[in-house]
Order: sequence, then structure tokens, then C-alpha cells
Amino acid sequence: MELALEDARAAAERGEVPVGAVVTDAAGVVLARAGNLVEAGQDPAAHAEMLALRAAARGRGRKYLADCVLTVTLEPCPMCAQAASLYRVKRVVFGAYDPKGGGVEHGARVFAAASCHHAPEVVGGVREAECAALLRAFFAARR
Amino acid sequence: MELALEDARAAAERGEVPVGAVVTDAAGVVLARAGNLVEAGQDPAAHAEMLALRAAARGRGRKYLADCVLTVTLEPCPMCAQAASLYRVKRVVFGAYDPKGGGVEHGARVFAAASCHHAPEVVGGVREAECAALLRAFFAARR
Repeated sequence: MELALEDARAAAERGEVPVGAVVTDAAGVVLARAGNLVEAGQDPAAHAEMLALRAAARGRGRKYLADCVLTVTLEPCPMCAQAASLYRVKRVVFGAYDPKGGGVEHGARVFAAASCHHAPEVVGGVREAECAALLRAFFAARR
Repeated sequence: MELALEDARAAAERGEVPVGAVVTDAAGVVLARAGNLVEAGQDPAAHAEMLALRAAARGRGRKYLADCVLTVTLEPCPMCAQAASLYRVKRVVFGAYDPKGGGVEHGARVFAAASCHHAPEVVGGVREAECAALLRAFFAARR
């Protein structure tokens, strides 16, 4: 989560919503990390999780990340949650809960749908205070 | 939908699950079209919808597709449904319903969540029989 927080802080400095994501393998080796690139790429789907998942799979030349952990500073939205399922990620670890946009513990609750083919294990609230503080500071500064 | 069906057929010929997607603007001009590239890219997130949405936004140099229609041969999964919401697509038109993997009328029902910030209009079942027949033929041939 420390690396994900670094990527989130770097995202904030670029004017992006501060979210960072890291994909690690079973040995804890970092396969990919990314911060939000929505503004830089003018791409609303360029969430940190999507970028990190894609880069991790590409880097390995394998479609699935079944032994991997996706660590992200904010509860994934439904798009990113479903992507974690499609890449067959073993575990999703996230920091701040997101009642407004989250799709794991809130909203569409993607992994809880009976039709979800692969539901990763979920650990939420890791270093929650720091992750949430980054987001609060970012939005407070923009107001 | 004819163009989306063409892309779906082309996908099947490449050994991809036959799904095609087209993004059109308010005047009906095609901004982008794509077929599934999951196998070719070894990327489980390379669904036709994601590719077409990204290409449409990039081609215009604009983040949102608020005047646009996403037409796709199969009910979008939760990832693609949320992406359509994030790109603020005006309308989603799809062909075959997908009780097993869909995230619009089935499963996570992404647009129905109270926290969904932008729910496109939805028209399902357009040329459903043709869209579904393509998928059935593809999977029957693989068994």
C-alpha cells in the first residue's frame, strides 16, 4: 500500500484524482503500478487499477493474474472491480471506502452478484485514514 | 447494429468471442468500432466496448461522449457498463441478452445502483436473434 500511496500522491501532483494501484505476484514482487491518468489521457477509463492490471498481464505475457494481489488506495468502481474479476486476481486490497463510487462494498457490489464468475478475496480499509486524507485534501483544494 | 455484427463476425474469424461494438455521434456518424481483442491481446479487459469507447474519445480529443450511442451485439458486462457510464454515453443499444455475464439487465445491474452517477438510456434485444446466433455458433464449434 505504501507504493500505491506514492502513486496516488504523484497523481495528485499531476492534477489527477489521487488514486494509486499496484499489482504484486505471489512472492510479493511488483509486476506493475500506476496512478490515475484520466485527465492526462482525457480518458475516463484510465483508472489506476485498469492501467496496473493491463500492464501486469502484458508484462508477463499472460492473460490471467490468478496468483496476484491488486492493491489500490480507493475502493474500486464497478469497472475496475469487474476487470479484477476478468483478470482473475486472487485478492483485492483497498484503502479508503467509496460509498459514492465504489463497486465492491457499495453500489453495484460486483463480486456479490450470483453471476460473478470469479470473486477475488477482498480486504478493505488498509491504511484507510491516509488514503482518504489524500482524496479529501485534493478535493478541498479544488473547491 | 449491422456494423457491430460485422465486427462480431470478424472477431469470430480471429478466434475471439464474437462481440462487436460501434460508437456513433448524434448525427449517426461512426466515431469508432471494434471487435473483441481478448485473445489477440491476451488482455481480458480488451472487450469490444472498451476499445470502441476509448478510440471514440481519443479520436475526438474529448473525455466525454455525452451525445453518443454505444451499440454492441451483446449485453455489456459490469466493466463495460460502468465504462459507458464514465464516458457519459447517452444511450446503450445491445443485441443479445447475457444472463451469465451481463451487467445491465442482469447480475450487478450497474446502471440501477443508486450511486450510478450517469445511467445511459438502454435499448436491449436489437437484432437479438442474429447476435445470439453468432455467439451460439461460436461456442458450439469450440465444444
